[in-house]
Amino acid sequence: MSGKLHVIGIGPGHPDQITPEAQEAIAVSTDLFGYGPYLDRLPPAAGQQRHASDNREELARARAALDLAASGKRVAVISGGDAGVFAMAAAVCEAVEHGPAAWRALDIAVVPGLTAMLAVAARAGAPLGHDFCALSLSDNLKPWPVIAGRLRAAAAAGFVIALYNPISRARPWQLGEAFAILREQLPPATPVIFGRAVGRAAERVTITALASADPALADMATCVIVGSPGTRVVERPGLPPLVYSPRSSGADI
Amino acid sequence: MSGKLHVIGIGPGHPDQITPEAQEAIAVSTDLFGYGPYLDRLPPAAGQQRHASDNREELARARAALDLAASGKRVAVISGGDAGVFAMAAAVCEAVEHGPAAWRALDIAVVPGLTAMLAVAARAGAPLGHDFCALSLSDNLKPWPVIAGRLRAAAAAGFVIALYNPISRARPWQLGEAFAILREQLPPATPVIFGRAVGRAAERVTITALASADPALADMATCVIVGSPGTRVVERPGLPPLVYSPRSSGADI
Repeated sequence: MSGKLHVIGIGPGHPDQITPEAQEAIAVSTDLFGYGPYLDRLPPAAGQQRHASDNREELARARAALDLAASGKRVAVISGGDAGVFAMAAAVCEAVEHGPAAWRALDIAVVPGLTAMLAVAARAGAPLGHDFCALSLSDNLKPWPVIAGRLRAAAAAGFVIALYNPISRARPWQLGEAFAILREQLPPATPVIFGRAVGRAAERVTITALASADPALADMATCVIVGSPGTRVVERPGLPPLVYSPRSSGADI
Repeated sequence: MSGKLHVIGIGPGHPDQITPEAQEAIAVSTDLFGYGPYLDRLPPAAGQQRHASDNREELARARAALDLAASGKRVAVISGGDAGVFAMAAAVCEAVEHGPAAWRALDIAVVPGLTAMLAVAARAGAPLGHDFCALSLSDNLKPWPVIAGRLRAAAAAGFVIALYNPISRARPWQLGEAFAILREQLPPATPVIFGRAVGRAAERVTITALASADPALADMATCVIVGSPGTRVVERPGLPPLVYSPRSSGADI
């Protein structure tokens, strides 16, 4: 009997944000692959092997997982957030495309999860309530001018913008440069939300304005949401504001 | 003691895709508001009141829910998919902004859920594996030229495009027109995924090419994903193809 490969999203970090479907798919797996800190979020299960690897080795991890599935194991590749958004499902598909023909015959299934921007948005109100985009600031695999062009296009067209991979040791200046580009196109009061480690003990959500948005508020565990010209801030006495993008966003452009 | 208002996303339809967090928030509520078919997905609970309303009455529903929460009840407003993506959280925020001051003092929390495009993408592989946008084709509250402009901007900049609210009785021609606009900008072979009622008995996922994409494949329960020029199709003998957007999408633009 041939093996099976599940690519599973476990959400942004809170255990109650893992879907029952993902829990079940993990439970029936013989082998778990993933970035160490994601695997560490899952309770150990008897007889289940763990294969932790570094975050920068996505393609090698995908190939190792496919190889083991081809040997007949039930393999789970674990992603934080959603498996399909800037995560392991694309790496698995890429490995299949360029790998041995046998991998195309494998039973491969992707189990979706809550991606970070949804959890961050929920904390702030409804900033993704209307047309939005999700953009990775990582320039490992695409050149910076492509990223800059997408930022300009999205802001000019009135999309709310969720920024993934905003900053890292190897990527120290990109978020500041992204804010500089967006300041040329968007009003200074445009709301910016920094959502760090949402649902975990280290959670910190900061709501500020584009004019004063400080890249130092972001780290590798942060998703940043930049509003559109239609995004509103509703102040509340003694409570954090509600940030939302009205269903009519764009009617005024 | 004052009331509480939860705005809760219950995912695209499969019961195992409702998060435990959402289940718990529903269980502790005294009153559920929502579009009838969404409420019908939830098992009845003793002593819990249901307030079903039509899908076109979002703002009136939000106001009624806030009003009841202000009277001290624990109120849940139920959304399909994610509460914050083209759904009720924005309507609640809008009602708070324009409503009585007392509503700003309410304990309001948004509980995120799996939005449709994530579930549809998972069925096809990883089409949202790189930069993407989500766009509503509803022109109830924003003019069509704004939608057309966003389609052109997103396609030109290399975003994968997820289309929400693609078609309805009141909106029969918009999806066809959207495909026509996208055909001017994207290669004929660009993959298009129609994901209907994913996770439910009526599920139907169709993968086709932009050149031959037929709007009649979509209905109100469908989310449509249109690839970018970087999106790939991996054919598999005897299995549906894998569609994915490589992590390097855009490096070739």
